[in-house]
Amino acid sequence: MIIIVTGMPGSGKSKIVHEFERRGFPSVSMGDVVREETVKRGLELTKENVAKVSIRLRQELGQNAVAKLAVEKVRELLRESPIVVIDGVRSLDEVGTFRGAFPGEKILIIAVHTPPMLRFERLRARGRHDDPQTWEDFEERDWKELKFGIGNVIAMADHMVVNDCSREEYEKRVRELVDKILAEH
Amino acid sequence: MIIIVTGMPGSGKSKIVHEFERRGFPSVSMGDVVREETVKRGLELTKENVAKVSIRLRQELGQNAVAKLAVEKVRELLRESPIVVIDGVRSLDEVGTFRGAFPGEKILIIAVHTPPMLRFERLRARGRHDDPQTWEDFEERDWKELKFGIGNVIAMADHMVVNDCSREEYEKRVRELVDKILAEH
Repeated sequence: MIIIVTGMPGSGKSKIVHEFERRGFPSVSMGDVVREETVKRGLELTKENVAKVSIRLRQELGQNAVAKLAVEKVRELLRESPIVVIDGVRSLDEVGTFRGAFPGEKILIIAVHTPPMLRFERLRARGRHDDPQTWEDFEERDWKELKFGIGNVIAMADHMVVNDCSREEYEKRVRELVDKILAEH
Repeated sequence: MIIIVTGMPGSGKSKIVHEFERRGFPSVSMGDVVREETVKRGLELTKENVAKVSIRLRQELGQNAVAKLAVEKVRELLRESPIVVIDGVRSLDEVGTFRGAFPGEKILIIAVHTPPMLRFERLRARGRHDDPQTWEDFEERDWKELKFGIGNVIAMADHMVVNDCSREEYEKRVRELVDKILAEH
């Protein structure tokens, strides 16, 4: 089974990925795929270089370049694990690439939803170097994701976790969802 | 305050609209706006005529034609009611039209999410003349909504209700959300 995890920036995707990892299931990060390609091409890991490689990959391999590279990693992990998690899918086209590459595999989409105002507050508090500090930066970053088509993946999710609560309550919701998915599998 | 209700076909939007109406707050349906225009233009209320008028309205008034017509109805209702609900918004552009028309008004987006498989089963069971009977019809209808950009509105919702449960439980969730919104208003 392949679990696709999606959600807007700062929504809390990584908690879900980590919960599956804690249970022994590996993950492939779409962001890591691009970062690895950047290093492979002998470039320093700066925001600009990663963006450049991301564009070049699309020129070389088409719109779903990152998904196509991720397919190989997923295939390898599926040899060892019955469940592989994919972190950071941003369009239904990418979902289609995975469905096409793994026709016999069950594919589930999990989306996390956090209200925009809460995501903004959390990202600002996190303060990672690329996290937005102003509402304008936040909207710009959101818009980048929306242009990819991430809203469509969220709209078509098989499971929706709402992260509008305390961290403890959210962690509980994630644990319960993972329990449910594993029980049904 | 303006409450925008959004969600994919068959997700359960109308339950939310009805709950606000039950508490005395009126609503404007984006679909009704087009149907009224169809009647105004002397055409019979068939699916084809409504689709035709919907296209003509866009040619005459631009992409957000329906939202622009809805603005006048909302403005009128806001004279009598502190809260007006808008049913069936399908793009962030339409949301922007409302924000632009009512700069002083608080605007909240409520999205309902129902997993696609459940929506399909419910729509098929409902069997309204335009409800899909096959998975292909269902996907085609979904795709129409997604092309408008409804996924972006869902991704940017201030409140997300998940309708993956019994009807009673969903009605309870809706009542609790409406209670919360009214208490905070």
